[in-house]
Amino acid sequence: MPSSLEPPWQDDNPVARPDLDRVRRKGVPEVILADRKTTAQALAIVRQFLAAQGRAILSRVPETLEARLREEFLGQATLEWYAHCRGAVLRRSDVAHSNSGGRVGILTAGTSDVPQAEEAALVCREMGCLVFSVYDVGVAGLHRLFEPLDRLVTRERVDVIIVAAGMDGALPSVVSGMVPLPVIGLPTSVGYGLGGQGLAALLCMLQTCAPGLAVVNIDNGIGAGAVAALIANGAAAARREMDGS
Amino acid sequence: MPSSLEPPWQDDNPVARPDLDRVRRKGVPEVILADRKTTAQALAIVRQFLAAQGRAILSRVPETLEARLREEFLGQATLEWYAHCRGAVLRRSDVAHSNSGGRVGILTAGTSDVPQAEEAALVCREMGCLVFSVYDVGVAGLHRLFEPLDRLVTRERVDVIIVAAGMDGALPSVVSGMVPLPVIGLPTSVGYGLGGQGLAALLCMLQTCAPGLAVVNIDNGIGAGAVAALIANGAAAARREMDGS
Amino acid sequence: MPSSLEPPWQDDNPVARPDLDRVRRKGVPEVILADRKTTAQALAIVRQFLAAQGRAILSRVPETLEARLREEFLGQATLEWYAHCRGAVLRRSDVAHSNSGGRVGILTAGTSDVPQAEEAALVCREMGCLVFSVYDVGVAGLHRLFEPLDRLVTRERVDVIIVAAGMDGALPSVVSGMVPLPVIGLPTSVGYGLGGQGLAALLCMLQTCAPGLAVVNIDNGIGAGAVAALIANGAAAARREMDGS
Amino acid sequence: MPSSLEPPWQDDNPVARPDLDRVRRKGVPEVILADRKTTAQALAIVRQFLAAQGRAILSRVPETLEARLREEFLGQATLEWYAHCRGAVLRRSDVAHSNSGGRVGILTAGTSDVPQAEEAALVCREMGCLVFSVYDVGVAGLHRLFEPLDRLVTRERVDVIIVAAGMDGALPSVVSGMVPLPVIGLPTSVGYGLGGQGLAALLCMLQTCAPGLAVVNIDNGIGAGAVAALIANGAAAARREMDGS
Amino acid sequence: MPSSLEPPWQDDNPVARPDLDRVRRKGVPEVILADRKTTAQALAIVRQFLAAQGRAILSRVPETLEARLREEFLGQATLEWYAHCRGAVLRRSDVAHSNSGGRVGILTAGTSDVPQAEEAALVCREMGCLVFSVYDVGVAGLHRLFEPLDRLVTRERVDVIIVAAGMDGALPSVVSGMVPLPVIGLPTSVGYGLGGQGLAALLCMLQTCAPGLAVVNIDNGIGAGAVAALIANGAAAARREMDGS
Amino acid sequence: MPSSLEPPWQDDNPVARPDLDRVRRKGVPEVILADRKTTAQALAIVRQFLAAQGRAILSRVPETLEARLREEFLGQATLEWYAHCRGAVLRRSDVAHSNSGGRVGILTAGTSDVPQAEEAALVCREMGCLVFSVYDVGVAGLHRLFEPLDRLVTRERVDVIIVAAGMDGALPSVVSGMVPLPVIGLPTSVGYGLGGQGLAALLCMLQTCAPGLAVVNIDNGIGAGAVAALIANGAAAARREMDGS
Amino acid sequence: MPSSLEPPWQDDNPVARPDLDRVRRKGVPEVILADRKTTAQALAIVRQFLAAQGRAILSRVPETLEARLREEFLGQATLEWYAHCRGAVLRRSDVAHSNSGGRVGILTAGTSDVPQAEEAALVCREMGCLVFSVYDVGVAGLHRLFEPLDRLVTRERVDVIIVAAGMDGALPSVVSGMVPLPVIGLPTSVGYGLGGQGLAALLCMLQTCAPGLAVVNIDNGIGAGAVAALIANGAAAARREMDGS
Amino acid sequence: MPSSLEPPWQDDNPVARPDLDRVRRKGVPEVILADRKTTAQALAIVRQFLAAQGRAILSRVPETLEARLREEFLGQATLEWYAHCRGAVLRRSDVAHSNSGGRVGILTAGTSDVPQAEEAALVCREMGCLVFSVYDVGVAGLHRLFEPLDRLVTRERVDVIIVAAGMDGALPSVVSGMVPLPVIGLPTSVGYGLGGQGLAALLCMLQTCAPGLAVVNIDNGIGAGAVAALIANGAAAARREMDGS
Repeated sequence: MPSSLEPPWQDDNPVARPDLDRVRRKGVPEVILADRKTTAQALAIVRQFLAAQGRAILSRVPETLEARLREEFLGQATLEWYAHCRGAVLRRSDVAHSNSGGRVGILTAGTSDVPQAEEAALVCREMGCLVFSVYDVGVAGLHRLFEPLDRLVTRERVDVIIVAAGMDGALPSVVSGMVPLPVIGLPTSVGYGLGGQGLAALLCMLQTCAPGLAVVNIDNGIGAGAVAALIANGAAAARREMDGS
Repeated sequence: MPSSLEPPWQDDNPVARPDLDRVRRKGVPEVILADRKTTAQALAIVRQFLAAQGRAILSRVPETLEARLREEFLGQATLEWYAHCRGAVLRRSDVAHSNSGGRVGILTAGTSDVPQAEEAALVCREMGCLVFSVYDVGVAGLHRLFEPLDRLVTRERVDVIIVAAGMDGALPSVVSGMVPLPVIGLPTSVGYGLGGQGLAALLCMLQTCAPGLAVVNIDNGIGAGAVAALIANGAAAARREMDGS
Repeated sequence: MPSSLEPPWQDDNPVARPDLDRVRRKGVPEVILADRKTTAQALAIVRQFLAAQGRAILSRVPETLEARLREEFLGQATLEWYAHCRGAVLRRSDVAHSNSGGRVGILTAGTSDVPQAEEAALVCREMGCLVFSVYDVGVAGLHRLFEPLDRLVTRERVDVIIVAAGMDGALPSVVSGMVPLPVIGLPTSVGYGLGGQGLAALLCMLQTCAPGLAVVNIDNGIGAGAVAALIANGAAAARREMDGS
Repeated sequence: MPSSLEPPWQDDNPVARPDLDRVRRKGVPEVILADRKTTAQALAIVRQFLAAQGRAILSRVPETLEARLREEFLGQATLEWYAHCRGAVLRRSDVAHSNSGGRVGILTAGTSDVPQAEEAALVCREMGCLVFSVYDVGVAGLHRLFEPLDRLVTRERVDVIIVAAGMDGALPSVVSGMVPLPVIGLPTSVGYGLGGQGLAALLCMLQTCAPGLAVVNIDNGIGAGAVAALIANGAAAARREMDGS
Repeated sequence: MPSSLEPPWQDDNPVARPDLDRVRRKGVPEVILADRKTTAQALAIVRQFLAAQGRAILSRVPETLEARLREEFLGQATLEWYAHCRGAVLRRSDVAHSNSGGRVGILTAGTSDVPQAEEAALVCREMGCLVFSVYDVGVAGLHRLFEPLDRLVTRERVDVIIVAAGMDGALPSVVSGMVPLPVIGLPTSVGYGLGGQGLAALLCMLQTCAPGLAVVNIDNGIGAGAVAALIANGAAAARREMDGS
Repeated sequence: MPSSLEPPWQDDNPVARPDLDRVRRKGVPEVILADRKTTAQALAIVRQFLAAQGRAILSRVPETLEARLREEFLGQATLEWYAHCRGAVLRRSDVAHSNSGGRVGILTAGTSDVPQAEEAALVCREMGCLVFSVYDVGVAGLHRLFEPLDRLVTRERVDVIIVAAGMDGALPSVVSGMVPLPVIGLPTSVGYGLGGQGLAALLCMLQTCAPGLAVVNIDNGIGAGAVAALIANGAAAARREMDGS
Repeated sequence: MPSSLEPPWQDDNPVARPDLDRVRRKGVPEVILADRKTTAQALAIVRQFLAAQGRAILSRVPETLEARLREEFLGQATLEWYAHCRGAVLRRSDVAHSNSGGRVGILTAGTSDVPQAEEAALVCREMGCLVFSVYDVGVAGLHRLFEPLDRLVTRERVDVIIVAAGMDGALPSVVSGMVPLPVIGLPTSVGYGLGGQGLAALLCMLQTCAPGLAVVNIDNGIGAGAVAALIANGAAAARREMDGS
Repeated sequence: MPSSLEPPWQDDNPVARPDLDRVRRKGVPEVILADRKTTAQALAIVRQFLAAQGRAILSRVPETLEARLREEFLGQATLEWYAHCRGAVLRRSDVAHSNSGGRVGILTAGTSDVPQAEEAALVCREMGCLVFSVYDVGVAGLHRLFEPLDRLVTRERVDVIIVAAGMDGALPSVVSGMVPLPVIGLPTSVGYGLGGQGLAALLCMLQTCAPGLAVVNIDNGIGAGAVAALIANGAAAARREMDGS
């Protein structure tokens, strides 16, 4: 930075203002998008979160950072590693994972949709929910769908279902037509040619005839997880509240 | 129809197969889109629904049809009329409006977004929810937002908030950053030039930084109402269930 | 036209050059798009086709023209009227409808897709095929699909299936994943907001995971009928040929 | 994967559910898209397919994988290698290639369209069809088209023609106007500037005036091959059936 | 206009500044787009042009204006009427139509492209060119193209060819591949669904493989005529110049 | 409204919350978009504004409303009428038009851009600025531009220039390259075919090489006027302030 | 270059014609986009600017060039380095930084928008303005915005505010609704999925309801700085001028 | 290629069919796009063209290929190297460059447009034209344009002008409004953000108000050169023909 710049210049001007209050105000924790940061930056932020809240959540962790996380923090914290989305949760040893009682189902149409689904699962779990996932049950072979879907609804009694799909994005509509629950459509950037990179999937979900489906943006697993967990935790809070009364 | 066509031709081939089972299977009633039907067709379907389920829900009712509805059904049913979206609920005199206990807040950014918000309110109410609406509190004058939003959350204790906005579509993000609840963004086809007809509003909501926001398609008030009511009714069911135990 | 224009100007320069040879060369008859022509023009062309080939096929017939067709031609020709797409086939009394032996199934996702499906049926029938249609069996209530689809395949033994769908356009993928037949996706201009007017439906079909699906443009019922009938007639020709040998 | 996650977590939750039944149910075999998988994953799936069905089909095979395929499998299986699209068919020595009797013609507008055409050919051949290909006969020099096209239709008597074209995508329309057969348009991602990457080609095919043309998505050689082979095999089945009777 | 506005306000501020110098500076006359003007405005401008240059050229003339033109000017001027594009040329009796010697060929793919082609012809003729038109020779039946095209090139010896096409827009590429002349592609707003309204036609022409093709915007018959006439007049000037030397 | 709705329903829920504070807070008055309101609604709002602020500003006034405005208010207020954009300013007789001292230049490329330019002028004038307009000086005849532009800068000493242009939208870039002033580009919905309706104009302005150009949305004359007047009034305030010291 | 080319060929045909006059004519200095040039080219241009004007401004400086700049010029010139946007200002030791008196505020919604904001700051500073920046105050946590914004307006008395935002692009509208100043929206290419890469941000700003907001293209920090500095310098010139009188 | 494939397979099926007749039939030589070929392939084709026609033209030559061309062919042929577009013309020593007499002017708006302009120049020169180029005369500093443009028209007497421009693409319209010649707009993929990569430039040219402008696709320097040279050669032929008579 040039030395001749007039104050108030960047000396008292922080580039980032972490929203440490969000988890309390909104009920949704911050997730550090690690692939947009240098290793040093990411490590600094992780230390800050571990100190302040006892937990740091990262997504899209590069290999170099993963090694450094394991090296530096494994003594003082546990590391939960989500391999498909390269997500990580570091939890200080003296901090317990809290359980909200919310219950979330997650389906994917194909195997390529698993990373996004896993990102959603990570967020739901860190918001205290139980997550029940079933992968690769897309509409090209519908017979694979019926049994797992029934199990989610009647046995696991989930409060909401996230459905991740790329390509034609047809699965969320099919699911939403079958279950008496809110469904969150999570389009993924799978697909080529016209409508590829998730465009057809997103449009198909927006155009659904099956009422009860809301969507998030393409590949926004974190957003899908946050809204689903808020829904599930609302129901869970009611269960707890009534229980306690 | 030509007389010479071979069977099986349209004689045993109905053009419409009403999904009378949906309200039971999915918890969401059918809404008759009246502007795509002739008056005669609409009246026939209304009679069918009144007979089978004691209730008929219509949206976008043309003036001619409105007159005929009042003429034919007011003796045997009550008519609730939603003027902004030209929606109607006919309820047979021997059928009570049932209350689910779900609580839904609805905000609009401007006055042009009221018809879509009202369509959402109609659906929520027919799914048994209490609805609390506040209109015209957009970001061009944010000071109008804070008090009503606080009232919805702390006094009315809504389970979910629908935010309808056209033009820049910024309000749902602002609201979602402030409340510990799931928010459903409802973009409306308000706006001109590039990004008009709701496109900018929808994209802005999909790109939100505020976690906890899911969206429906432009002008899909019915869809927003359905997913919000499913969410609210999930929480309400938990309240009832626990209460009953 | 100005009198002073040099030859060769439009005197020997016809504006239209009807492709009377197409039905022989290509196996697909011409369909007169009546809504782009004046009543007088349409009537003239109908007379020309009736004289030359004993048959005239029209689509999107305005009410005025319909009346004039009935008035002028009913003595000398039969009129088959397709009410949903306002299509008409006039056949001279001395000309028989020929049967190719091809068998085509047609499904629609909703009732709004019926006009396009009927246009496809009209073309298939005039190319000699038997047509088997089932309407309103979309993915929002999949249970309505299985029985009719099985009937088409195993009892009616169709050679190809056309699936018309608007909105999310998911039905063709679902069908194509279930039957050992080529499927022609026919997107319809049903739907609103982003992806509306058939865009989402078309993209969804182009992005299908289910192999064996090819598509035509939005609302191109005539094109869907033509390609399906060519497929069915290919199989039928093989049946006839072998039979005759 | 974190050790502390509650069951049922991914232990009993497979990421992929191969549709081993598809070739029987639908008549179209699975093609392994090798460029989205690690070498280890691809080899594992190849072994699985070779064991279960005696054949494994791969497309877009990276060089490393190609070497490993040749190394591991050449003793027990034959390898057919399609150089332009880097496709491979491994067939166990005790399994014969079966011939359906279907006949498919494939044309390309330019040399850049050959990889996609070859992918289509691969699928057709593995569905039992005879394939007749002619490359580089685009509309910039139409004189090159007429003779080969005539040969396909009258001498080789193909049941259907696939036409691959990028850039302006005009060839499928020209071909479809000339032959009494169904034509499958296969747009390729060739082209630059506005309408490039196959967009103009796809739109041009969707807008064709020549009836009898259906399309698949850009670069979807596998899809084009599957639908063409289903068409050809339908005709071939009729030939066989009649022959057998 | 408010009376209190300060000068210089619109009193000395003309809304239109006709470019009377253009025909001399650029060699292209102004064409009055009549459908954006009131009858009174159009008549005033016609009078102005007739007085200043002895000629007024109008396109898209509404029926009311046509009647008024015939009524007011037929005594003092000749009226050339182009019925398909509703274009008009009024020429004062004392002014001769000048002949530049340029020669322009015009082709259309279909009959719906004739209005745009005729607009181009009108401009070419008023820039002094001889125009040779052939209509409805599109690629769906290529056999109709060869003879007229050969005649334009070898007998009429045109300097440039305009090719008007909607739908798939394939004809200009085909023509440009066959003749040793510059070709101007004129896409027309004919077509429906994706790529409709001339989009596919324009993109197809921009993506042409056949060198020697340049394009104007959709429905810009006037622009196509202007550039073609400039080309032809350049060649004609060379012929005249050499001739005169 | 249905009688059975629970409070708080729309009784205490106004549909519109006029931002009466905006002109003080932001320095920009509200403009009533009259074409989205009934005559009765518009008149009511006009009365409200005249009472509260002594002035009412309307744009896009339908003919019926214009007549009613003249009828009802001409006794108590002056009416300034902007014919091209159908805008109106009603000013109560006891309220003076205030002059801020800001100076704004407005150029248009063509005559079709005048309505939008006039809307901008209206807003600038009501924010107290002097406005200097020059119309129809587009790039197709650049010689018309130089003199007026020089006059605006050196003689009228404007603080900012608004340049309205449709079609190719090239004029703002040309102007911005020539003057040492901020330029506001105002794209207008003039133009047809690809890039029509103002799209090309807007994109061209966004892509300008000439630094010092900022833009508003297509046809947003009111927005262009507001930002230009804020700029001019900032400079004028400095002039006044210094003057007063 | 081939030796046989006829003159006048590129010998007397410079590829670049630097606009050395721009800073005088327009008040905006040239910025060298270093990432499109080789190191040698960039160094040559820097020498040229240092010699002619005593200053060279570069943006997007690659690491190699940065090293070379420090190596070659640090003896004779000072280097101001803007780390986030990799911008550099080299100022000859005998040339002073001139102060115009203009005052510009810059806000960013997130930390990812800092590079673009810094580019704008660089340009403003080199046009003589004082810059006051506040980063990371986006709408997801609005409480962080109010205090800094108030400080900019009332204490620092800025003439104009630049607001940089990606993702939903909502911040400029919120700011523009709150302050009596012109606001320049600077959309940044931050965001993924539909509306990503700055599209939603740009559209949201174009659709703003808050009057007084104009925009530049995505990532055009230099353009935003130029127009803001022209605005601020206009006000500053008025202050100086009045002061001097 | 698999050994077991049935004939006729690719043995008698060449992948490329070079159009050796094009230069005679169409007057435009083939240009080898070298960046899509391996070095070996490119060298083979060069040999083939040198043998058959005494000349080989290449564009976008990679560095490796450039070295090989110099190595292998410099003994037997001259190499003309166009550095900006990396184009090459190899001409056998016994073959003369022929001069058609056509005259083409080429302008660019900026220095980034030079490669595309040079590609156009290369094609024009190989079609026998004299080329007169002027670079970097864009609308941000119009004063640089007038003198060179006048020189092209009045002194060099060019037959046609190519104008290459990216970003806002405004230069071709400005030029076309000033000269009595056909103008070919060549948009280049220069520009960022919305409308970047040449989109705004192309749309701006399509929307031009200045008659006499036709365009080619983004970056299609070869196409622009071909159509311009056909135009110039038409005029030159007339000059020659008349001269000879």
